[in-house]
Amino acid sequence: MAGSTLGNLFRVTTFGESHGVALGCIVDGCPAGLSLCEEDIQKYLDRRKPGQSKASTARNESDTVHILSGVFEGKTTGTPIALEIRNADQHSKDYGSIATSFRPGHADFGFYEKYGFRDYRGGGRSSGRETVARVAAGAIAAKLLGELGVKFTAYTKELGGVEITNFDEAEILNNPAYMPDKVAAALAMEKVEKARDEKDSLGGICECIITGVKPGIGEPVFDKLDANLAKAMLSIGAVKGFEIGDGFEVANLKGSENNDAFCVENGKVSKKTNHSGGTLGGMSDGSDIIFRVAFKPTPSIAKQQDAVNENGEEIKMEIVGRHDPVVVPRAVVVVETMAALVLADAYLMNMTSQLEGFKKFYE
Amino acid sequence: MAGSTLGNLFRVTTFGESHGVALGCIVDGCPAGLSLCEEDIQKYLDRRKPGQSKASTARNESDTVHILSGVFEGKTTGTPIALEIRNADQHSKDYGSIATSFRPGHADFGFYEKYGFRDYRGGGRSSGRETVARVAAGAIAAKLLGELGVKFTAYTKELGGVEITNFDEAEILNNPAYMPDKVAAALAMEKVEKARDEKDSLGGICECIITGVKPGIGEPVFDKLDANLAKAMLSIGAVKGFEIGDGFEVANLKGSENNDAFCVENGKVSKKTNHSGGTLGGMSDGSDIIFRVAFKPTPSIAKQQDAVNENGEEIKMEIVGRHDPVVVPRAVVVVETMAALVLADAYLMNMTSQLEGFKKFYE
Amino acid sequence: MAGSTLGNLFRVTTFGESHGVALGCIVDGCPAGLSLCEEDIQKYLDRRKPGQSKASTARNESDTVHILSGVFEGKTTGTPIALEIRNADQHSKDYGSIATSFRPGHADFGFYEKYGFRDYRGGGRSSGRETVARVAAGAIAAKLLGELGVKFTAYTKELGGVEITNFDEAEILNNPAYMPDKVAAALAMEKVEKARDEKDSLGGICECIITGVKPGIGEPVFDKLDANLAKAMLSIGAVKGFEIGDGFEVANLKGSENNDAFCVENGKVSKKTNHSGGTLGGMSDGSDIIFRVAFKPTPSIAKQQDAVNENGEEIKMEIVGRHDPVVVPRAVVVVETMAALVLADAYLMNMTSQLEGFKKFYE
Amino acid sequence: MAGSTLGNLFRVTTFGESHGVALGCIVDGCPAGLSLCEEDIQKYLDRRKPGQSKASTARNESDTVHILSGVFEGKTTGTPIALEIRNADQHSKDYGSIATSFRPGHADFGFYEKYGFRDYRGGGRSSGRETVARVAAGAIAAKLLGELGVKFTAYTKELGGVEITNFDEAEILNNPAYMPDKVAAALAMEKVEKARDEKDSLGGICECIITGVKPGIGEPVFDKLDANLAKAMLSIGAVKGFEIGDGFEVANLKGSENNDAFCVENGKVSKKTNHSGGTLGGMSDGSDIIFRVAFKPTPSIAKQQDAVNENGEEIKMEIVGRHDPVVVPRAVVVVETMAALVLADAYLMNMTSQLEGFKKFYE
Repeated sequence: MAGSTLGNLFRVTTFGESHGVALGCIVDGCPAGLSLCEEDIQKYLDRRKPGQSKASTARNESDTVHILSGVFEGKTTGTPIALEIRNADQHSKDYGSIATSFRPGHADFGFYEKYGFRDYRGGGRSSGRETVARVAAGAIAAKLLGELGVKFTAYTKELGGVEITNFDEAEILNNPAYMPDKVAAALAMEKVEKARDEKDSLGGICECIITGVKPGIGEPVFDKLDANLAKAMLSIGAVKGFEIGDGFEVANLKGSENNDAFCVENGKVSKKTNHSGGTLGGMSDGSDIIFRVAFKPTPSIAKQQDAVNENGEEIKMEIVGRHDPVVVPRAVVVVETMAALVLADAYLMNMTSQLEGFKKFYE
Repeated sequence: MAGSTLGNLFRVTTFGESHGVALGCIVDGCPAGLSLCEEDIQKYLDRRKPGQSKASTARNESDTVHILSGVFEGKTTGTPIALEIRNADQHSKDYGSIATSFRPGHADFGFYEKYGFRDYRGGGRSSGRETVARVAAGAIAAKLLGELGVKFTAYTKELGGVEITNFDEAEILNNPAYMPDKVAAALAMEKVEKARDEKDSLGGICECIITGVKPGIGEPVFDKLDANLAKAMLSIGAVKGFEIGDGFEVANLKGSENNDAFCVENGKVSKKTNHSGGTLGGMSDGSDIIFRVAFKPTPSIAKQQDAVNENGEEIKMEIVGRHDPVVVPRAVVVVETMAALVLADAYLMNMTSQLEGFKKFYE
Repeated sequence: MAGSTLGNLFRVTTFGESHGVALGCIVDGCPAGLSLCEEDIQKYLDRRKPGQSKASTARNESDTVHILSGVFEGKTTGTPIALEIRNADQHSKDYGSIATSFRPGHADFGFYEKYGFRDYRGGGRSSGRETVARVAAGAIAAKLLGELGVKFTAYTKELGGVEITNFDEAEILNNPAYMPDKVAAALAMEKVEKARDEKDSLGGICECIITGVKPGIGEPVFDKLDANLAKAMLSIGAVKGFEIGDGFEVANLKGSENNDAFCVENGKVSKKTNHSGGTLGGMSDGSDIIFRVAFKPTPSIAKQQDAVNENGEEIKMEIVGRHDPVVVPRAVVVVETMAALVLADAYLMNMTSQLEGFKKFYE
Repeated sequence: MAGSTLGNLFRVTTFGESHGVALGCIVDGCPAGLSLCEEDIQKYLDRRKPGQSKASTARNESDTVHILSGVFEGKTTGTPIALEIRNADQHSKDYGSIATSFRPGHADFGFYEKYGFRDYRGGGRSSGRETVARVAAGAIAAKLLGELGVKFTAYTKELGGVEITNFDEAEILNNPAYMPDKVAAALAMEKVEKARDEKDSLGGICECIITGVKPGIGEPVFDKLDANLAKAMLSIGAVKGFEIGDGFEVANLKGSENNDAFCVENGKVSKKTNHSGGTLGGMSDGSDIIFRVAFKPTPSIAKQQDAVNENGEEIKMEIVGRHDPVVVPRAVVVVETMAALVLADAYLMNMTSQLEGFKKFYE
C-alpha cells in the first residue's frame, strides 16, 4: 500500500527511477488468452518518447520494452506480466546543487521530509520518466478492452493558451503538439518555442474520449468510475485538475440545462445530450466518456529561481539540462493509458455484479 | 472491492440506502486511545441535516448516530468502530413511475444495467443520503487529526453563479449557503429561491482548506495525496470536477509564474506563494492544502423532462417531492469529512516511511 | 487493513465486542439477485448459539440477526449487506481482577501491549462471540454457492481424545457434539462432562468437506485456495493447526503413495484417490475439498492458574463464569461458514481468468 | 488481486515462470534508510539453489539477483525495490507428452481448467522455482527485522520419517538435509538416496523459530499473526499442513495442560511454558514463535503413473528429468523468508495502533 499499485483486478505495480537500472511494472490479473507481443506495447511507449519534436527533451532514450513473464506462445497466460524498460544511460554525473537543494515546483522537499534522503538523479522516482511503466501497463489494458470495441482517444485540447477549434482525429499523431487541429498545433508550437527561448515553460489541457463503453461500468460509492479516473489522472505528476463532462461549468448551469434527457435510439436507451460526460452516479451511462485534465507548466525552468537547500539556506537556482518546456504533448499517451487501466479494472469488477451472470458463467 | 470501502489504514466501509432500515459504517484502523463520543460525530451530521433552510429539503430526519462498537470508557479501543444512523421513516409508499423509469441525471439507468434491478426508493444506495455514513466516519478522522493540529475548513465558494468576494470564517456556519461571505450568501439564497420557484435547480463550487499539515504526507506514485483527494471528492454523488491550487488556471500560466519559490521562515523551509495548493509530487509541501470541487445542479427537478422507462418506452417525467434545489451547502461538510478521511489514512501510512522512525518506535 | 476485513470480491468487514451494544458485519460484493431473508442467516447462527447442551455455556443469548441494508423485495441488490446482532445483556458488572489481569491462554496481554488498554468485558473483541458476525456473513456465502451446487459440511471429528469411527451425515446436527457418529458423540460428551467437573476443558478437531467444487478455483501463488482456507481457519480464536487432504501424514508418505492418479470418469477428468484433499497447486482439482482444524481446549477454566496483572504482579486466578468446557461443537458452524466465505471469494475471482469468459460476458 | 501480491504495508508482488526470461518481484513499502546490497539477498538465494547435494536437482542455475530500483548509495529509498533473477537457460526443448498431459500431484489440470491453456515448460508459474522471488523479497524483510533483533531460524525437523532428536543450530547449514542434527541428517539422506533409486520421493516437516518478537504484533481478527503465517506457508507449493505451538496435539490436551501460566521475569511479563507457540489471540505474546509445516513428497517421480491428457485420454506417464526426490531441504529457506515477510508486514502495521504512538511520531 506504499502507493505503487493501482487497480483491484487488473492491477499494476510499478518500479523504477529516472536514472536507475530500469523501470517497469508487473501487471497482474490480465485474463489469459490475449494476444500480446512487445510491439503492442512499444507503439504506445513511442508516443511518449522524448526527442521527437521541439516540444520535448533532446535526451536520446530508446525506451525499449521487454516482456519478462506472463506471455507464452504469443498469448497472455493469466499469470503476472512483468515489463521492463532498461535505462540506456545511468552513468553518474555531477548533479551539482540539485543533489542537495529543493527545486521549486518539484517533489524534492516532500521526498526529503518523508524519507530522510532521496535519489536526486533526475528526480528519481518522482521523475516524469516514471510514467513509462504506466504507459506500458496501460497498453495492455487498452488492448484488452479493444477486444470489446472500447477505444481511447486522448489529445491536447489547449497548450500555452492556444485552444483547438477543430477536431480532426487523424491529425492528432501528426503534429508534435498531439492536437487534433493542425492550425492550433502550429500556433501552440510557436508559443512553446518562445517559452523555451525565454527559459520558461507552459501548461495545457488534455482531453480524453472513451467510446464503446457499455452502461453500468463502475461501482456506486467510493469506486465510482469517474472517481477512479480522477485519481488516476491526479496521480500523474504535473496534473492539477480533473473534470468530466461539463466539469466546472456545471456550477453555472441549471438542472434543466445540465440534465441529459433520456431517449430511445435504435431500440436502446440513449441520451439526447452528454453533459454528464458518460457517467451517472459513478457508473457509465452508455454515452462517450469525456474528461479533461489540467497540466501545470514544467517546473524545471532555466530562469533563475529562489530555492532552499538541505541545510536550510536560501539559494538562487537555474536548472540547466534538457527539459520539455511543456509536459502535455508527451503526457497525452499517459492520460490515455491510465484511463485504460481504470476502465479495464472496472470492466473486470463488473463481471461479478449479478447472480445471473455468476450462474451463467459456471453452468 | 465492490467499492464501499475507502482507505488503507484508516479504513471506512459504508452501508445503507435512502429508505432502508439504517445507514452507517465501520471505521477500522483508528488508533486506540482517542476520546470519542456520539456528540463528536453528531455535530458534523447536524451540518448536513436537511430541513434547516430554504436551500434544503423539508424532510424531517433526525440523523442520530449511535456508536455500536470500538469505544470503551470514552476512548477508542483500536477495534472497529461501527456507527449506525437509523432511518426514521421507511414506510413503503407509492413511488409511481419512478420505480420503473430512469430519471435524467440520476444513477437509475446504470444501476439497472449493472444489477438487473434496483432499490428505487429515494435513489436507494445512490441517494445523497448515503453520505451520512461518510460524514460520521470523517468526523472521527477529523478528530484524530485535530490531535496534531490539522484543521479542515470547507465552505461554499460559488452558488448559482454568485461567488464569494470576502472570507470571514466565522460566517460560514452562520448562513444557509455555508458561505464565508454574508452578502454573497444572501444573494445566492435569492437565486436558490428563484430556481425552486422555476422548478429548477442550481450548481456551485465548494472549496476546502486544510491547515497544519506536515510536509511529506502522501505517497509518491499512485497514492498521491491530491490523487486520493480527487478520488474522494469525485466519489461524492454530484461532483463533476476537482482542482487543487491554481487548478485549471495552470493551463495559462508559465512555469516562472506557477512555481512557488522556496524560502526560509522561522528557521523552516517555506514557500513564498502557494500556487501548488499545498502538494508537490503528491506529497504535502507544508503549505495550506486548498482544493475546489464542482457540484452539478440537483438532478431531481419538478420541471417536465424526457425520460425512458424499464420497458424502453419514452415518457415525460415531473419529479415531485422535496428535493434540495442545490446540493452544495449540505455537501460542504461531506467535502470536509471526506478530506479528513483521506488525510488520516495518509498520516498513518506515512509513519512507516523511514527505518529511523521504525527503530525509534520499537526501541 | 487493521484486520477486520476478509476477502477481495466477496468481502466481509466485522465489528463488535462480547459485551458491546451489538456485533455485526458488512458484506460487500455479493452479486445482486440472490434471494435472502433473515431466516437464511438465522439458521446458521442458531447452530453456534450457546445454552443448547452440556458442552456449551448457559448464557441465554438470542442472537437474532437483522438485515439493515442491501436486500430489497427479498433479493440482494448488489450493494453492501449490513447485518446486526444486538447484545441482549450489556449491563456493566464487576469484572473483578479480570479487568486488570492477563488470563493464561487469552489475548489479554497482547491486547494490552498493542493498544495500551482494552475492553476487558468478556474478552471484548477477542471473545469467541466475535464469530457470530462471521457466521452471519458466511451464511450468505454458503447460500450463494448453493446456487451452484457447492455444499459445505463441517463436523467434530475428535473431541477430548474420542475420534469418530463412523460417518452418518444425518447424525451431525443430532447430538451436542456435532459428531457424525452417535456412539462417539455420547462418549465425547461424557469426557466433556468430566472435564467440567474437574474445572478443566478439552480440545478437539473439526473436519470440513466441500463438495461440488469446479476445478480451477483458487489463484496460483499467494492466494492459493488452501492458503486462504488456512488463513481463515487460523483466524478463528482457538485454532492451532490446519491440514488439507493427507495433511501432516504426507511427511511419511512416498510420492508414489501420495500422488493421486488421474483417470477419466463419465467423460470427465477425475482422480482415483484424494490424498490431495481437493486442491493441487492452490487450485481446486474437482475432488471433494477436505481439511481439518485443531482447536485448543477452552482457556477459561475454573482451576486455579498463575497469572500476572497490569501492574506486573504475579497473582493466582480462578476464572468463574459460564464457559464452554470445549470450543469445538459450537465452532463447527464457524469453520463451515468461514470456508464458505473463502470459496465465494475465490469463485468470484475466478470469473476474470480468461479472455474467452470476459468476451462472452460482455458480448 | 490475482494472487501474486502478499502483504499490506510490506508488500511483495512476484512474477515469472520456471522457463521464462526472468523471475523476480517488486517489494513496495520497505522503509527508507535500510542498508541493502545484492549480497544481502544472494546469500538467502544460495540456500535454495539446486545442485548442491544429493537431495537436490542437478540443474545448474546461478540464480543471481539484480536490484533494479529502490536502492541508492547503498540504502533503500522508500520506493519500490525491484529484484530480478534471470533464467540462465530458457531454450525451448521437447516437452513431449508433458506439454499436453496432466501430471499427478501437479497444478497442470487446475491451470488448464482455469486459464484454458498453460505454460507447460517446467511447470511454468506453478514451478517450485517461483519461490526464488519470495526468498529474495523475504531476505529484505529479514534484514529489516534484524535491525530490531528479530531472528528467523528454519530447519528440517523430519525427513522421510527420520526425525531430529537433537538441536544444534550451527549444524543446520552444514548438511544437505538442513537438519540441526548431524546423525539424523545422515540417516535422512540415506533414505533420500534410496527413494531416488526407487524412482520415488519423500516428504517431511520443516520447523521455524522466530525469536526477539515484541508482544502485541499481529491484528486481532482476520489478520491474526498465526493466520497470516498459515496462509504464507500454505501458499508454498507442496505444503499440506501448518501448526503453531502444540498444534494438532492440543486436541488431546486439557486446558490446564495447554494454558501457559504467566509469570514475571526480569521485571517483564513472561510465560512459564510455551504451548501457544508465541501467539495468543492472533498477537505475539513475547515468547518464541514456533510453527511447523508439512511438505508432501515431490510429485514428479520417475515411476510410472496413471495420468490423463488434454484430450481426455488415459495415459501412462514416467516423468524423466532432474527433480529433487524431496522438497524440504531447499524449502527451508522459503519457509524462513516467507515468515519474515509476514512479520515485517505485521510490525509495520502495528505502528499505527495507538494514539500515543501516533502523536509521539508527529510531535
